[in-house]
Amino acid sequence: MASDIRTQELKKPIDYLFRRLHQVGVRSVHGLPGDYNLVALDYLQKTGLHWVGNVNELNAGYAADGYARVKGISALVTTFGVGELSAVNAIAGAYSEYVPIVHIVGYPTTVAQKDGMLLHHTLGNGDFNVFSRIFSQISCATSLLNDPHEAAMLIDNAIRECWRNSRPVYISLPTDIVQKKVEGARLETPLELKYAANEVEKEDYVVDVVLKYLHEAKNPVILVDACAIRHRALDEVHELVEKSGIPTFVAPMGKGAVNETLPNYGGVYAGDGSNAGVRERVESSDLVLSIGAVKSDFNTAGFTYRISQLRTIDFHSSYMRVKYSEYPGVRMNGVLRKVCAKMGKLNIQSGPIPNNDIPEEELKSPEPTITQAWFWPRLGQWLQASDIVITETGTANFGIWETRFPADVTAISQVLWGSIGYATGSCQGAALAAKELGIKRTILFTGDGSFQLTAQEVSTMLRNNLNPIIFVICNDGYTIERYIHGWKETYNDVQPWDYKALPAAFGARRGQTITYRVETKQQVNELFIDREFANSDKLRFVELVMPWDDAPVALKMTAKAAASRNSEQ
Amino acid sequence: MASDIRTQELKKPIDYLFRRLHQVGVRSVHGLPGDYNLVALDYLQKTGLHWVGNVNELNAGYAADGYARVKGISALVTTFGVGELSAVNAIAGAYSEYVPIVHIVGYPTTVAQKDGMLLHHTLGNGDFNVFSRIFSQISCATSLLNDPHEAAMLIDNAIRECWRNSRPVYISLPTDIVQKKVEGARLETPLELKYAANEVEKEDYVVDVVLKYLHEAKNPVILVDACAIRHRALDEVHELVEKSGIPTFVAPMGKGAVNETLPNYGGVYAGDGSNAGVRERVESSDLVLSIGAVKSDFNTAGFTYRISQLRTIDFHSSYMRVKYSEYPGVRMNGVLRKVCAKMGKLNIQSGPIPNNDIPEEELKSPEPTITQAWFWPRLGQWLQASDIVITETGTANFGIWETRFPADVTAISQVLWGSIGYATGSCQGAALAAKELGIKRTILFTGDGSFQLTAQEVSTMLRNNLNPIIFVICNDGYTIERYIHGWKETYNDVQPWDYKALPAAFGARRGQTITYRVETKQQVNELFIDREFANSDKLRFVELVMPWDDAPVALKMTAKAAASRNSEQ
Ligand SMILES: Cc1ncc(C[n+]2csc(CCOP(=O)(O)OP(=O)(O)O)c2C)c(N)n1
Ligand SMILES: Cc1ncc(C[n+]2csc(CCOP(=O)(O)OP(=O)(O)O)c2C)c(N)n1
Ligand SMILES: [Mg+2]
Ligand SMILES: [Mg+2]
Repeated sequence: MASDIRTQELKKPIDYLFRRLHQVGVRSVHGLPGDYNLVALDYLQKTGLHWVGNVNELNAGYAADGYARVKGISALVTTFGVGELSAVNAIAGAYSEYVPIVHIVGYPTTVAQKDGMLLHHTLGNGDFNVFSRIFSQISCATSLLNDPHEAAMLIDNAIRECWRNSRPVYISLPTDIVQKKVEGARLETPLELKYAANEVEKEDYVVDVVLKYLHEAKNPVILVDACAIRHRALDEVHELVEKSGIPTFVAPMGKGAVNETLPNYGGVYAGDGSNAGVRERVESSDLVLSIGAVKSDFNTAGFTYRISQLRTIDFHSSYMRVKYSEYPGVRMNGVLRKVCAKMGKLNIQSGPIPNNDIPEEELKSPEPTITQAWFWPRLGQWLQASDIVITETGTANFGIWETRFPADVTAISQVLWGSIGYATGSCQGAALAAKELGIKRTILFTGDGSFQLTAQEVSTMLRNNLNPIIFVICNDGYTIERYIHGWKETYNDVQPWDYKALPAAFGARRGQTITYRVETKQQVNELFIDREFANSDKLRFVELVMPWDDAPVALKMTAKAAASRNSEQ
Repeated sequence: MASDIRTQELKKPIDYLFRRLHQVGVRSVHGLPGDYNLVALDYLQKTGLHWVGNVNELNAGYAADGYARVKGISALVTTFGVGELSAVNAIAGAYSEYVPIVHIVGYPTTVAQKDGMLLHHTLGNGDFNVFSRIFSQISCATSLLNDPHEAAMLIDNAIRECWRNSRPVYISLPTDIVQKKVEGARLETPLELKYAANEVEKEDYVVDVVLKYLHEAKNPVILVDACAIRHRALDEVHELVEKSGIPTFVAPMGKGAVNETLPNYGGVYAGDGSNAGVRERVESSDLVLSIGAVKSDFNTAGFTYRISQLRTIDFHSSYMRVKYSEYPGVRMNGVLRKVCAKMGKLNIQSGPIPNNDIPEEELKSPEPTITQAWFWPRLGQWLQASDIVITETGTANFGIWETRFPADVTAISQVLWGSIGYATGSCQGAALAAKELGIKRTILFTGDGSFQLTAQEVSTMLRNNLNPIIFVICNDGYTIERYIHGWKETYNDVQPWDYKALPAAFGARRGQTITYRVETKQQVNELFIDREFANSDKLRFVELVMPWDDAPVALKMTAKAAASRNSEQ
């Protein structure tokens, strides 16, 4: 077969790696330079990749996570030791929450490694494998490119594993390997990223069992959670939801998985943390099709699900479970597709219909203060189709349960890992991915406490001409923590910042940003009818002032459960 | 024996831990709250410890490092998973550079761990030991307090190991253990921190060998490096230097170890990176007493030492080496003390005398621009006795070689680990330690690129009413990297910030800070005669503008060596 001259010529591992990343959809690479990766960075532009140039590696890791959640996969480049280890928390978070990041680390030469040289960025003990050992705990593959002959194979393997497992992988790139030679011809064959199909007989068997119970059910419901998103089953889920008309709910981590404007969308289910109507409907159902569940404490308002396994069918990426019968090795996607195809007529009892109405008491209250109960449904009235909405661990992550989304909203948060500072970093990556995809708005809600951890990522947004809308919830400290322990303790206070002053301090050009401060409901209403605010191409930065002692109901409940678990003896 | 009623009553592991920390000199604890450590934080005040309340865990780790370098040991509290993993780079740096930090991590209850519960801040796989496994790679002891019966013993062991090895240790503190009971009586016996004495016969043998060569030597020199500081041999070193009169030099990592106003202090030796006179004197010596050497690339201007092992006696914390004869298990301290005692008459040939004179060419130059060659000796004229001087990886870390210190200066930097952002975090901890010790000035020199990684630690300084003097070297990006690779590449640029605006944005109260910008030598001179600048109790923040393409000579040399090693094939 005739092969393209350009790929034949490609013989450098670095070219190979960057081209593979380009093939799987990466267009921007996050990270920081360091002397062990500088030469590699020279190859970015040639391969059509944009260098983000983050302010620090933790932020870069968070940003890569946000980018991957929007574009499907991302890449992060750090330098040996000091750079990579700064990103450990971000990579662990991506591992925990199933986000595919290809982490490339610039290493000293293979010779220096073999000689155990006393180089900068080492522990001084001649051991060059400590850091890869650390990352092997939180990566689904670790490829050390110490030999050019196997480099191409190892790169392919790492990217494939990253995509398929939807988890981070680690690639070491020693400076003397960067420009060695590898066979370029492999590049002509795209990586095989498709999931292996289920064994037909086994799949059919499971499908029959599912259908049997589905047909018997009087009032089934669907409950969609994070793994449906992360393991790429949303097309199948949507088909099922739309075709079946079964009342459909999402867990907090599954928020955004389902088109919330569908008539059979019923709201967020999280046990005792659910809204009136939702809990009753889900818990009285005789069959729950639970898709991609992650039943963690914060995703279930403190383990308060009341759904019997005897009334549950679990769909997962690596197994199915019908009541107590398990079917290992059967992936949900194929099953979902066949269940849809063979569904026939079902018994449907309708469910609640969520809205963005402000609660009665809030409407009646003469208080001008912006309360959590008032704000989140009000936000739902303002959001637009296709918005990307990022919420931080804190009041925002629980408040968003009360926001009914327009169609096609992508929601980003870390309900399981819950690292604060994540949301601001993630916002940079998500906004960049949005720009590449032509998505107009990326909207961040972070707490004042959380924002302080990674605030300088706003600088990277400015540097890359991104224009997200940033809301910093100013409530004088760590409100979520106060609800768990230490109501008025100073360790839950934060230094009061002049948040609005930061974009300018981070070098915003004149006219590149607009800043706002809203302290009353009225001001929020004015902001939400402001056309410039809604549609400007400037970065918009809002101080959203809320009371220090206010929290969404679901948070109060979850915090109580966490506090009592922590003090169990 | 009658025992103090107060200690008898103490029965909670957390009380025990905090009191032990207090006993070894800790007065402030760095870190961030998280629900798994909140209850523990309630005990800080009761035990006389101050809570710093950092802005993020990496900064907190760096700050703990700075605090330990000034006070001898420090403590860091983080929360499970998200908190601790953010500090990995700081702990690895402390491990690499021998800095003792007691890292205490709030864990979920032992019950939740046993049950493998799907809690927030876990990887979702029920494995609660992943993070301690990660830290065991970069800690000299790992104590998991899962059983109150062994808690006191494990705490004692961890703190003792931390002190003796001068390296970080890891202590897990599950929320259900915090308030259990432990025996308080142990607290009456202070921890034994002294190093075990050398075996007498063996020590005497080595001392005789050392003395033999020392008496034979015609022109011996002393070369002091980092491990003399980190392994607490400075008293012995000073005695030797002063009593013997032998010309004494320091390696870059040993800067500050020796009183630089002594008549026999000769300057910084770093192979080809040394000043005129120094290199000749050291390399022509017939006997080098090398104390606590760390011969890393950046500490030796790229491995350019020219000192034969046949003319070297190495003093270390765990062994001695005379020429090629090794004496494992012999600690330098005892040997140094006896060598001093038995020294007798030596042959001394004097060495160069460093000064803070501005180089000729700089004096003659009509250019108003602040050059690196001009600035660092000029700084030496302005420094005061007892100052703490912190320099960041970048031009500052090499520039400081040209500054002759007044007496009793403590110098802090990371020549081996070299993580940028470190210096700003470290400055917070050092300034706090200085305040506790009544030391007046803590002075930071960081690069613009480096400062961006951890800039918000200035907020913690303000929150804690600290008043360091901060110089940000504004030279439009990563100059040190440009000298290695990518002279004009955009990946070596940074977003231009309005640095001076940051203290106010970080919530400085009116009158709490003063900001400056100096762009010319004249302005530096004016600043250096400004009494308020020198002695104010306000935080002082200076933009120090230097050319983007200028670097200290030693950096140019070291960068060249690094670049050529990185491109070795
Ligand atoms: C990296 C990290 N450090 C510490 C914590 C513990 N923690 C969880 S939420 C929180 C406070 C968040 O406060 P803020 O962002 O102000 O949110 P809000 O006030 O809206 O609840 C803290 C400290 C964490 N989750 N992650
Ligand atoms: C955490 C970390 N990330 C990346 C690097 C690689 N690195 C070493 S020095 C440097 C640039 C420092 O620039 P700056 O602080 O501006 O110093 P200067 O311009 O004075 O040389 C970088 C990116 C590092 N050492 N540590
Ligand atoms: Mg807050
Ligand atoms: Mg710079």
